[in-house]
Amino acid sequence: MVGIAQVNVYLRVSAVLSFVLTVCLVGLDTQTKIIFFIARKATYRELEALRILVYVDSAAAGYNLLQLCKGLISARFEGNLKGAYICISWIGFLLDQFAAYITFAANSAAIEAAVLAITGAEEFQWMKLCNRYTRFCFQMGGALLCGYVASILMALISFISAYNLFRNYSPNRFLHLKKT
Amino acid sequence: MVGIAQVNVYLRVSAVLSFVLTVCLVGLDTQTKIIFFIARKATYRELEALRILVYVDSAAAGYNLLQLCKGLISARFEGNLKGAYICISWIGFLLDQFAAYITFAANSAAIEAAVLAITGAEEFQWMKLCNRYTRFCFQMGGALLCGYVASILMALISFISAYNLFRNYSPNRFLHLKKT
Repeated sequence: MVGIAQVNVYLRVSAVLSFVLTVCLVGLDTQTKIIFFIARKATYRELEALRILVYVDSAAAGYNLLQLCKGLISARFEGNLKGAYICISWIGFLLDQFAAYITFAANSAAIEAAVLAITGAEEFQWMKLCNRYTRFCFQMGGALLCGYVASILMALISFISAYNLFRNYSPNRFLHLKKT
Repeated sequence: MVGIAQVNVYLRVSAVLSFVLTVCLVGLDTQTKIIFFIARKATYRELEALRILVYVDSAAAGYNLLQLCKGLISARFEGNLKGAYICISWIGFLLDQFAAYITFAANSAAIEAAVLAITGAEEFQWMKLCNRYTRFCFQMGGALLCGYVASILMALISFISAYNLFRNYSPNRFLHLKKT
């Protein structure tokens, strides 16, 4: 029991760090280029997907910090209140699943925007951007990689919370708690 | 036990139907417009994200069909071979999780491409498309909605497979199977 709780804490700390790094890399990424005598500045604000990524990843980092605080408080009376423990586990499980899916989705949407910036879409006359904003694109690539690492950590965390919740149930009767 | 298995079958059948509907709606969506005397045809092939969505959703539909077939075969000797059952449950759980995340990610990437088609990106001189290819965009919107329904069904299926797997484990000792 201690083993898996420790792994959970390490995973959550790593996830928080990866999310914060992603947000910093995306948020601080700017490049100005002069095109036809007009200075154009590329930032994450230009693309909806990157803005959403910043919000979602910040929220996910905050959520994991809250879960870490909760872990410190609830570790003491885990054994005492079975019903309350199950209830908290369900809420934690659903929130973890939600966070995992949402961060994964936000990252994938940002990746799609990044791919469009690299390849363009000829038929629609959307031009390539990364041949002009090269440094911007490299930093964004690093940020998205980091975001994917964080999403995979969130998926692992949601596996563990599913395991912690569902192993309390009977293997034979539907949604019946096991006797300990 | 029968209750949850039946729910699982219904969910998988609904997921297969939603995935097939999504693939058909995306795949058959074309619109030709004459712009500056040149006929331009919008299809899903123009955008990487939509092409990937078609492949991923087709694969997910096929995977769910296979799981339905497997369910028919393995229902008979579920009780007999405990070890083999756990092993198959683990594989099923991991594949379901993988399918749920991948379909969710593919859909979100396609949604991002669709949002870009509606809003454009002024700073990058990517123009709006949906004021020209209106019917194409409406059909694509329906397809993406349908794809999200399918992704949520996949998430529910992966919840059930997590429940079916982890309830076989002891609530007190780490990764120890319960005695029945």
